[in-house]
Amino acid sequence: MTHLEQRAREYARQNQERFLDQLKEFVSIASVSTDPEARSEMVRAAEWVAARLRALGVNQVEVAPTGGHPAVVGEWLGAPGQPTILIYGHYDVQPVDPLELWQSPPFTPEVRGENLYGRGASDMKGQVMAVLSALEAVRVTTGGTFPVNLKFLIEGEEEIGSPSLPKFITQNRQRLQADFCLNPDSGMLGAQYPTITYGLRGIITFELRVSGPKSDLHSGIYGGVVHNPAVALAELIAGMHDASGRVTLPGFYDDVLPITAAEHADFARLPLDDAYYLEQTGVPALWGEPEYLPDERVGARPTLEVNGLLSGFTGAGFKTVLPAQAMAKLSCRLVPKQDPAKIAAGLRQYLEQNAPRTVRWELVEFGGSPASISDVNQPGVKALQKALESVWGVQPFFKREGGSVPVVTQMQTLLGMESVITGFGLPDDNLHAPNEKLHLPTWYRGIEAMVAFLFNAAEN
Amino acid sequence: MTHLEQRAREYARQNQERFLDQLKEFVSIASVSTDPEARSEMVRAAEWVAARLRALGVNQVEVAPTGGHPAVVGEWLGAPGQPTILIYGHYDVQPVDPLELWQSPPFTPEVRGENLYGRGASDMKGQVMAVLSALEAVRVTTGGTFPVNLKFLIEGEEEIGSPSLPKFITQNRQRLQADFCLNPDSGMLGAQYPTITYGLRGIITFELRVSGPKSDLHSGIYGGVVHNPAVALAELIAGMHDASGRVTLPGFYDDVLPITAAEHADFARLPLDDAYYLEQTGVPALWGEPEYLPDERVGARPTLEVNGLLSGFTGAGFKTVLPAQAMAKLSCRLVPKQDPAKIAAGLRQYLEQNAPRTVRWELVEFGGSPASISDVNQPGVKALQKALESVWGVQPFFKREGGSVPVVTQMQTLLGMESVITGFGLPDDNLHAPNEKLHLPTWYRGIEAMVAFLFNAAEN
Repeated sequence: MTHLEQRAREYARQNQERFLDQLKEFVSIASVSTDPEARSEMVRAAEWVAARLRALGVNQVEVAPTGGHPAVVGEWLGAPGQPTILIYGHYDVQPVDPLELWQSPPFTPEVRGENLYGRGASDMKGQVMAVLSALEAVRVTTGGTFPVNLKFLIEGEEEIGSPSLPKFITQNRQRLQADFCLNPDSGMLGAQYPTITYGLRGIITFELRVSGPKSDLHSGIYGGVVHNPAVALAELIAGMHDASGRVTLPGFYDDVLPITAAEHADFARLPLDDAYYLEQTGVPALWGEPEYLPDERVGARPTLEVNGLLSGFTGAGFKTVLPAQAMAKLSCRLVPKQDPAKIAAGLRQYLEQNAPRTVRWELVEFGGSPASISDVNQPGVKALQKALESVWGVQPFFKREGGSVPVVTQMQTLLGMESVITGFGLPDDNLHAPNEKLHLPTWYRGIEAMVAFLFNAAEN
Repeated sequence: MTHLEQRAREYARQNQERFLDQLKEFVSIASVSTDPEARSEMVRAAEWVAARLRALGVNQVEVAPTGGHPAVVGEWLGAPGQPTILIYGHYDVQPVDPLELWQSPPFTPEVRGENLYGRGASDMKGQVMAVLSALEAVRVTTGGTFPVNLKFLIEGEEEIGSPSLPKFITQNRQRLQADFCLNPDSGMLGAQYPTITYGLRGIITFELRVSGPKSDLHSGIYGGVVHNPAVALAELIAGMHDASGRVTLPGFYDDVLPITAAEHADFARLPLDDAYYLEQTGVPALWGEPEYLPDERVGARPTLEVNGLLSGFTGAGFKTVLPAQAMAKLSCRLVPKQDPAKIAAGLRQYLEQNAPRTVRWELVEFGGSPASISDVNQPGVKALQKALESVWGVQPFFKREGGSVPVVTQMQTLLGMESVITGFGLPDDNLHAPNEKLHLPTWYRGIEAMVAFLFNAAEN
């Protein structure tokens, strides 16, 4: 460790409280990208990030229009001969419903115990701020420079599937070009397990609408001659898995790569056994393809989920309506080699073959992205691996994650750029759920690791 | 037909316009029982009915408190030795939403073509006024008497499930005791099909809650090891019917009476074929137990419906949540001899046998009431049958209706009293919907039929 790196890491430790205050300010902006009424908060969050970047000496900072929510871009190219790293992040957050389950207001960040509670604290305002805090530590210590060149892309549409991003990346190819991308939007396996994610599942999302009668009917007067759309929908959903939890859609597993013996050994090394998943989820028993390890089912096997159901009367008490329609939000998590379009075609074929003629159905596709898997031997990964080990004192874990980060695929296909994926959130951070939190001791280690990473990434 | 009956029927024909004016006055009172802000209109409607009864010479008329909306009661016992008929009705109406779909304001009754439009015109202010108009015709013609003894119970909570009625009936058993109840809250199969309803299905309602994870999860991070509660619920619902539409709950059909050849012939005579149900519902194809006629499936077979579904994210767009829970509102329509408690036990047994150990479930029962079927040979039915035939010139249709009218069951269980169920509304009256209407030519025939009924009900 160089003297400079040591001083920068000391600075990071001494300024934890101030970094936390900045994070709180960022979390208090209600930048819910899916909410049409949050438009001004979205702009406010983007401007807030831009101001932080400018304060760090980043040049050409712009809150750039994308057609959707703006993206914040900027660059610092003062290290000629050194690699250029594109730092990716997103300033938007998930919706907060159900609000009544939050113990403190989602946009009034509150420290309780070792955690900071608030929407976006972990996903991913905390991760963005870990990097920006590290940059401050480096900049102050070096007297105004960084050991590597930096570019920034902090978008505002990640939580709604980044719809404007592919076009924006294509139109700004030159401006974003870098040696690799640092994407801290993933998480750790546990507070003692620094983690590098080298595989991400893809995703494709749908809304399936089943309708029957022209309007809601009286269930007494028509019950018995009308196929209840809620029942028909349930029947269609029930047929999408077999008894062992395998997805039955035509061709669903056609392109899935078998797990090799070496991969299986890696998965078996991860601290993700049945007990771990039982503890994390609180379910009475695990479920899924019995021939695979739990972390294989999550990391290396595709899935089909129902993300929402709505039909008829859902208030308190009872109303004897025979609903005119029923809706399910469906999504598939995909593994490498699976083509989202082919999976969508398989679902459509399943519905054509199985939907009864007693109802009508409609399938809306919200788009998707394929899975990605990155080269674990690229220099950026090596730099990160060394940084994490120097902070936690253990070899980091390499993980294939069940989540999907479409931007990683887009970086590969549109910019030919590999991503180095990490993050300092924990599995129990309540991502996308009430009481989202960030474990502060881990976050502080993360800032220090980012300092180390910036120095490691420079060619000596 | 006696000379008196003939004169009373002539009076009814000559006073149609005045009866219509009275009905309009009644319909113009916005007595929406579910609307907390309509309290004064509820009282106004009750007082209006009470005033009409007093004008008809009914004694001991009272707008009686029930704990909820008041009930109007009264009696005329001036025909010693003759049967006593309890006339049941309700003065409350359904809400008017969506208001923008009404062609004329719901509480400004308007005649267009052969119909009177307005909320409650058919359900059931028109039906109440058919009886009261008939009573006026009889009273004027006889010089102040009726051929039978009369009691009245016009309640104000039918459209919200008559919550105060059982207690009120129990506390006023003596005051309401009669030989049978005339309940004109049903309707006709068509303008040319005078109808007597002799069977009503019972009902039992539930909420089934399936839960798995302790909170909503990220579908990428946990999809594959957690049994999605929405999927598990869909699987449970799908298993509740077999491919032919039969309910699979243990013992569900144990007590269902077979349809006799004579009953089947009656059902086959009804104008309720496939085309009728397709037209009424707008479904692409009918559904249900193939060995039964559509009207048998609705009238004489029990059913299980899903009345509502809710899980996860149901807004616009997409959220990749793995929901912590999923809920279905379920109800069973029951036929005579089926015991609601036994049906509930069957559902519980089905869930115990079929719910996987990967989820938790809870079944909330909202209570129910058994089906009712009346003796078509009772004198009240005979009197009505003869009256309808004398007005329409055809044998009335005997119908078992799919809906449930709790008050009919309450009359049986609390007062040991049979109900004679009829009414002069038509299937296209838009009950509970915008542009509710009453077909006036049919209503005028109904008034005349009620005149005939009152004379027929007297023991000669």
